Amino acid sequence: MVHDGGASVSVALDAMGGDCGPEVAIKGADLVLSGVVPCECKVHLSIYGKESAVLPVLSRHRLVEKNSVFIDTPDAVLPDDRPSFALRHRRKSSMWCAIEGVKKGMVASAVSAGNTGALMAISRYLLGTLQGIDRPAIATVLPSREGNFVVLDLGANAECVPDSLFQFAIMGRAFSKTVLGVKNPKVGLLNIGAEETKGTCGIKEAFALMRDAKQGINFYGYIEAKEAFDGVVDVVVTDGFSGNVMLKTCEAVAGLTLHILKKEICSSLFGRALMRVARPFYFRKRASGSALDVRSYNGAVLLGLNGVVVKSHGSADAVAFAHAIKEAVCAISQGAMVKEMISEVSNI
Amino acid sequence: MVHDGGASVSVALDAMGGDCGPEVAIKGADLVLSGVVPCECKVHLSIYGKESAVLPVLSRHRLVEKNSVFIDTPDAVLPDDRPSFALRHRRKSSMWCAIEGVKKGMVASAVSAGNTGALMAISRYLLGTLQGIDRPAIATVLPSREGNFVVLDLGANAECVPDSLFQFAIMGRAFSKTVLGVKNPKVGLLNIGAEETKGTCGIKEAFALMRDAKQGINFYGYIEAKEAFDGVVDVVVTDGFSGNVMLKTCEAVAGLTLHILKKEICSSLFGRALMRVARPFYFRKRASGSALDVRSYNGAVLLGLNGVVVKSHGSADAVAFAHAIKEAVCAISQGAMVKEMISEVSNI
Repeated sequence: MVHDGGASVSVALDAMGGDCGPEVAIKGADLVLSGVVPCECKVHLSIYGKESAVLPVLSRHRLVEKNSVFIDTPDAVLPDDRPSFALRHRRKSSMWCAIEGVKKGMVASAVSAGNTGALMAISRYLLGTLQGIDRPAIATVLPSREGNFVVLDLGANAECVPDSLFQFAIMGRAFSKTVLGVKNPKVGLLNIGAEETKGTCGIKEAFALMRDAKQGINFYGYIEAKEAFDGVVDVVVTDGFSGNVMLKTCEAVAGLTLHILKKEICSSLFGRALMRVARPFYFRKRASGSALDVRSYNGAVLLGLNGVVVKSHGSADAVAFAHAIKEAVCAISQGAMVKEMISEVSNI
Repeated sequence: MVHDGGASVSVALDAMGGDCGPEVAIKGADLVLSGVVPCECKVHLSIYGKESAVLPVLSRHRLVEKNSVFIDTPDAVLPDDRPSFALRHRRKSSMWCAIEGVKKGMVASAVSAGNTGALMAISRYLLGTLQGIDRPAIATVLPSREGNFVVLDLGANAECVPDSLFQFAIMGRAFSKTVLGVKNPKVGLLNIGAEETKGTCGIKEAFALMRDAKQGINFYGYIEAKEAFDGVVDVVVTDGFSGNVMLKTCEAVAGLTLHILKKEICSSLFGRALMRVARPFYFRKRASGSALDVRSYNGAVLLGLNGVVVKSHGSADAVAFAHAIKEAVCAISQGAMVKEMISEVSNI
């Protein structure tokens, strides 16, 4: 079944992307379909990949096999493929065909853990960008002390002109409104200080664009990384280089902090005893979805396209991949994100 | 006493910098002199500040009063002062006079929690840059799974040309060798992916410079933020914008992770009971200097100058400020950092 309307959503999976191949993608799908990683509506999957690689895995996951269609694609995008190479030579790849599924309306969104550059290039080529958007961006949701916030771009555009940053603000705002349900999202521009003298020339120009926007975008002004995690704004706008550094530092430091804490606790007899008592409790907590589990933040959305494409971490495990599928479902079912964005852009 | 040679080191304190003024600086000095935050050698302090603000605080800290000289300075650099303004109009400020102390050889280094831009501009003006270094950088030490690593620049140069990034590599290497005692430090260039196609044009040019360096700098290649915290390299080179984002994200996420963990644990009766049992243990650990205490990483060194200047966080508390003083002592007593840098630069 590809699509049956109503309360169910159909998602295309590129099963060949990611460091661990189909195993992770199919297991992730299993976690979603079995409700271990709960989604708010029923999910149907179209799985794209090489028959020889995918079918053996699929045969071990009957639930996925039952609730999906498999589409054999003879080729796959490789991690080192340049975007231009993928555009020319990977037209029979699982990634290409999955996104083509979105274009043709066979699925509502596509998820891939493959090569980010190729994913962006193919998505852009097949789906096109929204009118008024020059460059799509990658966005994700990160936790803060007050809940969470959207940050973009995460690496699609290593260098950005001020106009692009302004468009990111519009897209991030639409995402925050439709996907996270924030009524009038506060938008901050990432900088290395709150003072007007701080930052690059491009940042200063983008600041002026956001401040003077005709329709108003509830612009908070410059924001530092620390304030973002304090929950001061709902949307953090930055270029793809800084955004990527912010995202990866966040993931690394969350893990490192717990690692150091555990090491410190275990350095004493009392601490080790305490850990033994706490362990069952910790595992119960973790299974029910801890906010500390960085995997639950996996799934970044490519914004600014005529369609929904979600990028999973290349190194994602099954739980993380399941969250990327959930993100793909969320972006659609909380609905009308693309339409909201079109309306916001046309209001500029 | 200003300087008595031998195993003691004299440090200039700008007591007027930082969000909380002299109170924090003097208390921080007290923690160092009393050995609560231990330093590897004896410290003598020259405290610069406005008499009316500093003397009342000093009178409450007899140990500091006894082991320092106080220098009354009629002016102070304000947080919003532009660097150019500070250079022209703050020549009688505590910051200016403290750095002048370094220049005249009255103290071995200076510590300030004041305006970073002004600190860099005044330091550069008074001390000058090392031959072969165009732009000084701010460096600090961050924790990794394998120990720690140096990262620079942290915000002195929001935009960097490839030559500057190359010079940062040389400076970071010298810091790692002399201050952290790493024999042949591995240097990584921060990027948003390991593939050669990733990153900005500037990054790619800097990559070529580092790879082709005549004397060799043990260049690891591109490194992502995640790998840096895994401990893959000893030195991470980046521009001041990304470095600042990395530093502030690191500080924020370390705090946020512990905040979420505490909240999750306290959400159950069992967890609350566990916390009560663990609390005395935790405080004992913390007092003895936990690796989780971000304050112990306070103190960033301005590299590339003819002298040692250390920047403390503006929002530092006394413990954090004490660590900045310690850093200033360290940078000198582990010795010869400046000389090492001169020799490295002349080898290029």
